[in-house]
Amino acid sequence: MTQQFSAYSIIQKKRDKGRLTKEEINWFITGLTEGYIEDYQMSALLMAIFLCGMDIEETSYLTDAMLYSGKVLNFPEQHYIDKHSTGGVGDKASFILAPIAAACGVKVPMIAGRGLGHTGGTIDKIESIKGFKTDLPLEEFERLLKERGLVLIGQTKDIAPADKKIYALRDVTATVESIPLITASIMSKKLAEGAKGIVMDIKTGNGAFMSKLSDAKKLADSIRKTGLRFDKNMMTMITDMSEPLGLAVGNSLEIIESIETLKGRGPKDLTELSVALAGGMIYLAGLSKTLKDGIKKAQASIDDGSALEKFRELISNQGGDAHVVDNYDLLPQTESTFEVKSKKAGFITKMECTELGKHCVRLGGGRQKTGDKIDFAVGFVMNKKIGDKVSKGESLMTIHCHDHQMKIAEEIALLVNSRDITISATKPRAKKKLIIEVQTKFAPVKKTPAKAKAKTKAPAKKAKK
Amino acid sequence: MTQQFSAYSIIQKKRDKGRLTKEEINWFITGLTEGYIEDYQMSALLMAIFLCGMDIEETSYLTDAMLYSGKVLNFPEQHYIDKHSTGGVGDKASFILAPIAAACGVKVPMIAGRGLGHTGGTIDKIESIKGFKTDLPLEEFERLLKERGLVLIGQTKDIAPADKKIYALRDVTATVESIPLITASIMSKKLAEGAKGIVMDIKTGNGAFMSKLSDAKKLADSIRKTGLRFDKNMMTMITDMSEPLGLAVGNSLEIIESIETLKGRGPKDLTELSVALAGGMIYLAGLSKTLKDGIKKAQASIDDGSALEKFRELISNQGGDAHVVDNYDLLPQTESTFEVKSKKAGFITKMECTELGKHCVRLGGGRQKTGDKIDFAVGFVMNKKIGDKVSKGESLMTIHCHDHQMKIAEEIALLVNSRDITISATKPRAKKKLIIEVQTKFAPVKKTPAKAKAKTKAPAKKAKK
Repeated sequence: MTQQFSAYSIIQKKRDKGRLTKEEINWFITGLTEGYIEDYQMSALLMAIFLCGMDIEETSYLTDAMLYSGKVLNFPEQHYIDKHSTGGVGDKASFILAPIAAACGVKVPMIAGRGLGHTGGTIDKIESIKGFKTDLPLEEFERLLKERGLVLIGQTKDIAPADKKIYALRDVTATVESIPLITASIMSKKLAEGAKGIVMDIKTGNGAFMSKLSDAKKLADSIRKTGLRFDKNMMTMITDMSEPLGLAVGNSLEIIESIETLKGRGPKDLTELSVALAGGMIYLAGLSKTLKDGIKKAQASIDDGSALEKFRELISNQGGDAHVVDNYDLLPQTESTFEVKSKKAGFITKMECTELGKHCVRLGGGRQKTGDKIDFAVGFVMNKKIGDKVSKGESLMTIHCHDHQMKIAEEIALLVNSRDITISATKPRAKKKLIIEVQTKFAPVKKTPAKAKAKTKAPAKKAKK
Repeated sequence: MTQQFSAYSIIQKKRDKGRLTKEEINWFITGLTEGYIEDYQMSALLMAIFLCGMDIEETSYLTDAMLYSGKVLNFPEQHYIDKHSTGGVGDKASFILAPIAAACGVKVPMIAGRGLGHTGGTIDKIESIKGFKTDLPLEEFERLLKERGLVLIGQTKDIAPADKKIYALRDVTATVESIPLITASIMSKKLAEGAKGIVMDIKTGNGAFMSKLSDAKKLADSIRKTGLRFDKNMMTMITDMSEPLGLAVGNSLEIIESIETLKGRGPKDLTELSVALAGGMIYLAGLSKTLKDGIKKAQASIDDGSALEKFRELISNQGGDAHVVDNYDLLPQTESTFEVKSKKAGFITKMECTELGKHCVRLGGGRQKTGDKIDFAVGFVMNKKIGDKVSKGESLMTIHCHDHQMKIAEEIALLVNSRDITISATKPRAKKKLIIEVQTKFAPVKKTPAKAKAKTKAPAKKAKK
């Protein structure tokens, strides 16, 4: 088979805007894993894909090839639902929606990533909780999912190893922001996790990878269509990321805010989004008749405490100290805080969300490069959101930092005032919608042979047989 | 300096169709040599350049960065003229034009390549002559050039090492056919050889890398303009490569045909092209008033035997056995030949020139991959050219092969008849022009301070001073 293709001719074909076949894509990706395709050939193909594009069919083939580079789980029952977010600043919705969905009967398999750059990682955040194990083997993952309905682990090398290689290359060759490559990267991992349905939170705005709404719509479309080709029930939500989600940014701080939200005391935007995404999962799982009903059920599980209980269970299941739910002092905390006081009075009209995210990284709460150690305690809590009124001298945000970081905190305060938060004399007319667009597609139900027969207009004779 | 730039942002800029600065290009190429840029980053940038292009200024910066990655010679006198061909099947013009130009007073520094793919390499061909040394150190190269006026060596790692790395990457990442990349590759090597003027033979047609005339014109334009930016006198000739140049293809066979041409008995097309290119060198060197005069001088050096004498000298200078000039039996030869007989009568209207070139490689006369050993003896001699009449059973070409290669020869004969040579009932109206376009540009003469003063309209007072 190796003889039928050449790396040169496949790269050349894409470079010349041709459509690659399933076999060509499969041969190339297999070659990357097996070693007959070199990194420099992969990166040339990635740039050619970046610049010349791929249609949905090619994207599916790429997803398929990356998916089958590793182990593939399969839970064909409709109530197994996965969730993914393209990532944003302060996005801790997973910790809230997963217990909610599980409390409502959804089985939630979650394999999440670590943070890199301006957005934090779900796995880093949950590891703020002492003892919480995120490196369970896949067998244990399957067992917990089936028995307890909820499990959260880090990416393993068993799942889509080709994606790991390709992602590392994209990250250093300026080939990240490509719809087909993002689709294949996300979907190869999500499909490998085996759920029957997937709810995708696609962020847009200046804190998101897809900052333009038109790009976010294209990605949503690509992901939905790719998922359908793999017989998955798909929901995409495009949501705003032009300010941090909720108020807290930082690992421990976000866990605390998540617990507060599960207790019904969370920030409005974070609660709304988490409940909507959980509602989507409940709906995709077939556990509610409409999305609206799903959302109602989701909210009810916060109100009756069952979602909080599920979160407590999740922590215990994976070896963590569930007492954190009642005692936040058990989470890492800094010895100091620093108030960023506003130098101006007026209304907050804009935030440089990515820049805000970077301040947390700078304090040690995120990674500048792979392998950097995370400080769970540091971060900041916003005291104002877009649209809020602020007086001169009032605190815009509270930085949680260590004593030796006061100089960094002062520098951050300067940047926040001069660059990251825009304050205007007049109140902004309307706040941006949090949930911009929701689209749902159920995969066609596969007819069993019996049903198929019944519906087929077969000749009378054969039907009688 | 390393901190000022990032590989990511440079690749990203080109990918987004931006113009790279001199500093960015220099930092990237230096990084490739020094190791802080990885091959996979280079290949991503190469693909971005391939697809998004580079203007003449960027191309010059790239050329400059590659040029100064190694040693740079400098012969500022006008009569030092270099020549380069983009490569074609049966192209042995260098062996003819270089002695001609040298016989007419031009100093000819030649650093040539080995063959890869369907075209042969000048260095492989000359090594058919027993004892001929092509790996002289640069000091010896300079000495022979100054004292004898003519020298021919292979590429050394001292000259433009960045080009070597980049070329190897382009060759396996489908980024070969790019005007700016080809320009920078050719010009970085040619400029490093230090001649004041360069004659470029740019091939077009189905045996050339630039098969389309429009691409050949673009390349000629790019090369001329880049050369001018480096203060070189430039001549570009676009020449036809839709059939092998001359009749012989193969290492020994081409040396024999070159000597025959120097003796005034060469094929018409080969003679015409070699004399024209040599004439161009004489003209650029300032040794004739017009190109036409240069061509006349060139032809005269064949007629009076002085060019042949120079070739004999070249062989001796570099340790070869100059007796080959009078006795072709001293060159490697096969024990057999095989006639490819025409299965059809009519007129030859077309040849698949690249495919013909590959037959020589298949016999062992060229390389399928770097490092393959060359068989100097094998090859073929065309008995017909485009426009010629042929009868059924008449020989189209004579294959020079070894006894054990008869099966290969038969297979070649089949392909030549069925695919590579088209025979039609009617004579083609007109043969393609061999020399399609010639353009010459002399670099502006740099004024000496004294002359500059004389020409400046300076205020009277100052002029009187």
